[in-house]
Amino acid sequence: MSILDVKWDPKEKKIARTAFDRAYQREMAEIKAALLDQITKLKDDEKVWSIHNYLSECRAEVDRKYDYRYSQLILVFGRLLKEGYLKEEDIVGLSDDKIKLIKVCHQINKSNIIHVC
Amino acid sequence: MSILDVKWDPKEKKIARTAFDRAYQREMAEIKAALLDQITKLKDDEKVWSIHNYLSECRAEVDRKYDYRYSQLILVFGRLLKEGYLKEEDIVGLSDDKIKLIKVCHQINKSNIIHVC
Repeated sequence: MSILDVKWDPKEKKIARTAFDRAYQREMAEIKAALLDQITKLKDDEKVWSIHNYLSECRAEVDRKYDYRYSQLILVFGRLLKEGYLKEEDIVGLSDDKIKLIKVCHQINKSNIIHVC
Repeated sequence: MSILDVKWDPKEKKIARTAFDRAYQREMAEIKAALLDQITKLKDDEKVWSIHNYLSECRAEVDRKYDYRYSQLILVFGRLLKEGYLKEEDIVGLSDDKIKLIKVCHQINKSNIIHVC
């Protein structure tokens, strides 16, 4: 089965949306904390642009990562689970097949997943 | 006299460089303090990109403003003096003509200065 063929019923879509938003909130909280840490440790005021560079990278990465298309959601959840922003309890209620795919997918290189899963 | 014709002798160039750097340091310190203030006041973690937007604007503005070409320095110093990043004591040692131009220029719209000064 390809992850592109996965079907999401209305109940699962609701669970997925909540899980997705929670992961996003956790990651944003982490970025904010890292930002605060960087600023308080910044000894040279003139290096404040390093913080801008950091935020630019984070923003690009987050924008790329949080793709809510259903065709991508297994991959996205796999990655978020691996990175710790998604918790297993967040996806309770999804079908066993989807949970299995999510757990497997995060261990596999993205370029292989489409064919393997 | 056009500000484009202003000549800077070696002693004045040294004073100008130091004054320019001091103004830059003051502005960067202010940006850092504002940044810290914004982060500590940020109640919604998901609005952390507003800080990125703020820094992007500051960076573009600072990059535009701090133009060390001698043909622009009177204008730049005029603006920095007006904004408080440059102090009058920073430019002590420049010729009276230059100091007068700097003090006059900050009150005039940039588009008029080239012709008026």
